[in-house]
Amino acid sequence: MVVTPWEVSGKIDYDKLTREFGTENLTIDLLERIQKYAGTLHTQLRRRIFFSHRDLNWILDEYDKGTKFALYTGRGPSGPVHIGHIVPWIFTKHLQDVFKSNLFFQMTDDESMLIKKLEDPYHWTYENTLDIIAIGFDPKRTVIISDIKNIQSLYELAIQVAKHMTFSTVKAVFGFQDSSNVGMIFFPAIQAVPALIPSAVSGRSVPCLIPAAIDQDPYWRITRDVAPKLGYPKPAQIHSKFLPGLGKGGKMSASMPETAIFTTDPPEVAELKIMDAFTGGRATVEEQRRLGANPDICSVYYYEYFLFMDSDRDIEELRRNCLSGAILCGECKQILAERVKPFLIEHQARRQKAKDQVKEFLAESKGLSLPE
Amino acid sequence: MVVTPWEVSGKIDYDKLTREFGTENLTIDLLERIQKYAGTLHTQLRRRIFFSHRDLNWILDEYDKGTKFALYTGRGPSGPVHIGHIVPWIFTKHLQDVFKSNLFFQMTDDESMLIKKLEDPYHWTYENTLDIIAIGFDPKRTVIISDIKNIQSLYELAIQVAKHMTFSTVKAVFGFQDSSNVGMIFFPAIQAVPALIPSAVSGRSVPCLIPAAIDQDPYWRITRDVAPKLGYPKPAQIHSKFLPGLGKGGKMSASMPETAIFTTDPPEVAELKIMDAFTGGRATVEEQRRLGANPDICSVYYYEYFLFMDSDRDIEELRRNCLSGAILCGECKQILAERVKPFLIEHQARRQKAKDQVKEFLAESKGLSLPE
Repeated sequence: MVVTPWEVSGKIDYDKLTREFGTENLTIDLLERIQKYAGTLHTQLRRRIFFSHRDLNWILDEYDKGTKFALYTGRGPSGPVHIGHIVPWIFTKHLQDVFKSNLFFQMTDDESMLIKKLEDPYHWTYENTLDIIAIGFDPKRTVIISDIKNIQSLYELAIQVAKHMTFSTVKAVFGFQDSSNVGMIFFPAIQAVPALIPSAVSGRSVPCLIPAAIDQDPYWRITRDVAPKLGYPKPAQIHSKFLPGLGKGGKMSASMPETAIFTTDPPEVAELKIMDAFTGGRATVEEQRRLGANPDICSVYYYEYFLFMDSDRDIEELRRNCLSGAILCGECKQILAERVKPFLIEHQARRQKAKDQVKEFLAESKGLSLPE
Repeated sequence: MVVTPWEVSGKIDYDKLTREFGTENLTIDLLERIQKYAGTLHTQLRRRIFFSHRDLNWILDEYDKGTKFALYTGRGPSGPVHIGHIVPWIFTKHLQDVFKSNLFFQMTDDESMLIKKLEDPYHWTYENTLDIIAIGFDPKRTVIISDIKNIQSLYELAIQVAKHMTFSTVKAVFGFQDSSNVGMIFFPAIQAVPALIPSAVSGRSVPCLIPAAIDQDPYWRITRDVAPKLGYPKPAQIHSKFLPGLGKGGKMSASMPETAIFTTDPPEVAELKIMDAFTGGRATVEEQRRLGANPDICSVYYYEYFLFMDSDRDIEELRRNCLSGAILCGECKQILAERVKPFLIEHQARRQKAKDQVKEFLAESKGLSLPE
């Protein structure tokens, strides 16, 4: 198992991750506190797709006392967005809707430049911005920050952070070596900044909650060490699992297009990818009818579980039918494809509409101050 | 002898420095080539205050062929400007006058924040800017760049530089350690940028010459390695010695006010500092008359030599009279004070006037494009 901000591979043991990272599992008590405000419990919480946290209890304590929190999440714009990326964004929108939170969405195009050979760093920032807007965030309460285009608003804070961040720390946390470039070594200071911005721009202490996949935790773990030294509250976090890909071993990667459904895939292309997906099925129909299949290694099942099959009763029935051999993989793929296709059509329509909304979201047009 | 960008101490052996840094001494041939354009040979060249270079011959070859070069120098604005700081600026103005060069003047206020406890990084940037303007640079051909205030114009280039700069390199060159903060580790990429800007903003290859004290050479030594990888010419350099301070052992430091004449010192304060200066004099008048004094360890002599006594005949006569005991230290100090006082009065008048010229110089008001 390898889980770093740049690489996620192997079989992920989430219990081991929470132990190693020193985070806490989401408790029933915490879920009930969120449910109190949300009315329902979001699928991604019920299914523990968001499963771990730091200081979420404090965030809710503050909210109970009337202190709103800001949300901060991000995206490294180095390629097209796939469905795995948008899973935590959908939950982030839910949090924004429930808690009327301001959302600071960081596009780490500088990091993308530092680790990839990008000819045009702005191309993917723009393309990915359309996907983010298409999720349906509230434009009044959301600002999308490109590190490169808005560095003027970030740099002085980043310098203050950097002053308290030694090479020794980033080496231990990220595994940097002598051969690492100095941009990557500095970058954790840049990724820290949006957690401080809600307080810095409003001039008061604003709690910040970061919903993101758990591989990004190291960045904010060190941010939590520095923030109090600068007079800012430690950012809290809520961590998601990774949506596995369509390939064997749960691989999904923008660099292996056949293993990922991109938000811009034509629905019929997505259908073909699903029909080719790796499943937990048997070698023959006869065998599968007799022995049943294995949903726990099945990418099709994961897609339903993570995003498309909202009803717990339906997902349990699917699991039962899979285990018993009552349903075959071909049928199951067809069911998923019939859900994915309309999802893509709708997302792509919103994405098209987003082209006219970009200015309402970008820091370079609206600044970083959001309403209270 | 310690010579790094942050510390200069001990007895400076400039021959050893050029060998260790791998720079070249200014040859008669090079001086004659400059003199051809300047008409005269500037005092700081005649006296080898500027004494070493990298690729100055190439700069002049290009100029001979009709290709103008840009100048780039800088200042770390962490305190008041003293007379030692302005020595290379005066020569830089001479180069601008002779070669009609554009000048990019970098204020490394980010580095000042990273290494000092500055409450307000803008205070010294502004104060020092007045001193720079007071030197008399051509406002049409000069832009003063605050790293923090103009990071938007620098960051993307800095990222490109950083990509080609490893921790291993900056560790070897600057002696960074595990305890170094990540801002200082990244900073060499920022200090590289103004050397590339003349080419980057004009879209063609513009030679760049950096006149600066030799302690800053390591920054541009590594810039020279990176520039060609990004398609830019290597910056050339011309290196100055350090003006020793008024204290014993040649110390001059903004943190020891009694050892430095600040540009903002009232003339009578400067006079008192000079009268208290360390000299090469003897214990008694009788002894000095008999044995003579030592100008080679005398801070008063150095001030005359570096800046105030322009006539070679006068400085040789002073040296002779010092060695022979014909002149006493008190007299010599008085002569220097009578030169320093009107200099300060004039500089301070120009500095006052500079307050109305700031906008003509700052990158944040005029951008980075200068005339061809």
